[in-house]
Amino acid sequence: MPTLEFFRLQTRQEVLALYDRFAPVGAEDVDLADACGRVLAAPIRAPEDVPGFLRATMDGYAVKAQDTFGASVGAPQYLEIKGEVPMGVAPTRGVGPGESLRVATGAMLPPGADAVVMIEYTAEHPDGTLEVRRAVAPGENALTPGEDVARGEMLFPAGRRLRPQEIGLLAALGLGRIAAYKKPRVAIISSGDEIVPLDGTPGPGQVRDSNAYLAAAQVAEWGGLPLMHGIIPDDFDALRNTLAEALITADLILISGGSSVGVRDLTLTAIQDLPDSEVLVHGVALRPGKPTILAALGQTPPKPLMGLPGHPASAAVVMEVLGRPLLLRLAGASHQSPWGRRVSAVLSRNLAGATGREDYVRVRLRREDATLWADPVLGPSGLLSPLVKSDGLVMIPLGVEGLCKGAEVAVQLFGGS
Amino acid sequence: MPTLEFFRLQTRQEVLALYDRFAPVGAEDVDLADACGRVLAAPIRAPEDVPGFLRATMDGYAVKAQDTFGASVGAPQYLEIKGEVPMGVAPTRGVGPGESLRVATGAMLPPGADAVVMIEYTAEHPDGTLEVRRAVAPGENALTPGEDVARGEMLFPAGRRLRPQEIGLLAALGLGRIAAYKKPRVAIISSGDEIVPLDGTPGPGQVRDSNAYLAAAQVAEWGGLPLMHGIIPDDFDALRNTLAEALITADLILISGGSSVGVRDLTLTAIQDLPDSEVLVHGVALRPGKPTILAALGQTPPKPLMGLPGHPASAAVVMEVLGRPLLLRLAGASHQSPWGRRVSAVLSRNLAGATGREDYVRVRLRREDATLWADPVLGPSGLLSPLVKSDGLVMIPLGVEGLCKGAEVAVQLFGGS
Repeated sequence: MPTLEFFRLQTRQEVLALYDRFAPVGAEDVDLADACGRVLAAPIRAPEDVPGFLRATMDGYAVKAQDTFGASVGAPQYLEIKGEVPMGVAPTRGVGPGESLRVATGAMLPPGADAVVMIEYTAEHPDGTLEVRRAVAPGENALTPGEDVARGEMLFPAGRRLRPQEIGLLAALGLGRIAAYKKPRVAIISSGDEIVPLDGTPGPGQVRDSNAYLAAAQVAEWGGLPLMHGIIPDDFDALRNTLAEALITADLILISGGSSVGVRDLTLTAIQDLPDSEVLVHGVALRPGKPTILAALGQTPPKPLMGLPGHPASAAVVMEVLGRPLLLRLAGASHQSPWGRRVSAVLSRNLAGATGREDYVRVRLRREDATLWADPVLGPSGLLSPLVKSDGLVMIPLGVEGLCKGAEVAVQLFGGS
Repeated sequence: MPTLEFFRLQTRQEVLALYDRFAPVGAEDVDLADACGRVLAAPIRAPEDVPGFLRATMDGYAVKAQDTFGASVGAPQYLEIKGEVPMGVAPTRGVGPGESLRVATGAMLPPGADAVVMIEYTAEHPDGTLEVRRAVAPGENALTPGEDVARGEMLFPAGRRLRPQEIGLLAALGLGRIAAYKKPRVAIISSGDEIVPLDGTPGPGQVRDSNAYLAAAQVAEWGGLPLMHGIIPDDFDALRNTLAEALITADLILISGGSSVGVRDLTLTAIQDLPDSEVLVHGVALRPGKPTILAALGQTPPKPLMGLPGHPASAAVVMEVLGRPLLLRLAGASHQSPWGRRVSAVLSRNLAGATGREDYVRVRLRREDATLWADPVLGPSGLLSPLVKSDGLVMIPLGVEGLCKGAEVAVQLFGGS
């Protein structure tokens, strides 16, 4: 029977390196209206120019720029107004030397015109003459075809997560459906004889299934689809059968189990009883989070299983530090901006590290005058409330004895903080 | 007919102060499994203690702490093992002086026991004697009832946005349904004779409806429900009727209109034709974003309408700077953490400000050695691509002539960056 002794604690980097063996989930076509936050499964090239025509960006008059050269308030130039360009259609006439046409922002410039004089720098005379008080350069107050995006241009690589502005650009190009990676389906299994459902009343010695709810919310926030598999008693057959069932539909299995040695051993045994299973990690050099399990189940490609520690704060930290990168790997997200979830702050007290483990300390952020302070929120990892009072985590690296009060630290923000 | 001349440009602070007159949308009951990201509509007190019983946080032996006092490797104490506490039920016997019971992490401590000796510091002898090599203090390796959350404790005020850890704590308390503010319904109307639907082929002078898609994605990302109302031509009756129709169901109306003076005037006229309408803002001291409109429609309470500039970059910035706070106001979100969307960086080139306006410059973040640089991404606001290349915005305050290369700046990150 496997025990902790067979494994040495693996570092975060060692665990993350193992994720290479798990493949992103498949792709599906998604309506652009539902695509924000999704990850592209194929690169996108621009199928056409944006804008598709020479376009006014100001209200004013379409002109030949050279007709305005030298114009100033003191020495205006005079042009003939030949009418106006209606919105949304091609101009019915062009602009010849000494001529102009009224244009509104967004209108197409007529043939012969190469710039727009803003209405602020003009006056219309009753005889149809336009007084131009400022010169414009060719292309001024106009967008040339393809200036925003040129046809054939590589826009986004596969793996790019779409933000609102990417959605806007894809809409401008008429790309109403895009190929995105599916949202990874994440089976969440709670195990433990002491766990009762959320709507149950815990008897003596019993607690509600809070870890599963916490993990499911994290999964959903990070772009996965949580599939709740309920509570399994500490029983080999029940656990093994639930794992086998979850494997049919899930891309990732999370077991939110107890932290006792017996329960961990039971989980390992059940994993190893599944065909083509391999326990990759049993114990990580993190504090909190040591009793974490990573396994590969099945073949071509294997599906990952992560066994989370039973203490809620440990499980939440392991999910942030190891679970989120795994989910992003399955979701096909190729790059993750490193600044979106980090903020610099000043540590408000000394912190001792954990020997031989990377230490994650919960902190609350507090702004005082011009300084952003990180106040450690201490408390055993069996408690939820310190996690609720925190905005993020400060990491004390492996091999560092501690961090001093006044040190500048990077705070990894919790989602939604 | 109203024109820009009737209004002076209002500052961001002046616009934000007007939001007080708009009320949060109503509340609804939400399943806890769907509540992450939602905003509490009522404060929550703890209905019970968490944990509900004296609970082991380590594998080991339940003891009377005083029986271990003085124990060390050189001078162990010896206790009698009287059996074990099963998981999930009340212990059937207590611990008397000189006695111990095996417990796993999460188990209930038996009557008489007040601490747990970790298994690492013990040995079991064949005769049922426990050798204890380290003393424990009362309460050590155990959680007392109510230590995480005490019954009656005020947990969260109304207006709190729920993160995964809040969901976990509410699950531990058995609160399976919570009262949350509804997601604000946001009508999105595109106006302009030159706009064609996403799946249309733009003819000469025509463009696709990209601003509506960009705004809808922002709304969804910030917790609102976008309702697409399609494209309305530049026609008074069509615009007025669409506004009246949108008012029936929407909590907020966004008009993504053209930037030409004529279209803005048409929008204003249509707004003013609606009963009990009031134009509050017509022009803001922002660059980009000047031609923004804010109006209050109807009574008890009025509903806000925001008219967005036609240039895509202008509309996106106005949505970030003015639209998001308005949406959060309607969503009942009482406080917004100021650090979650900001990061400090060093400006990589000089930037000139805009006279009389708060200036928002798109920047791309780039890490080089230990420095995070903010590289300005310049380009006319009619372009989408600079927005796509950017990670966030740097603001040059009103009255500041510019920012120098090397200045430390706060970058307001775009959602998803």
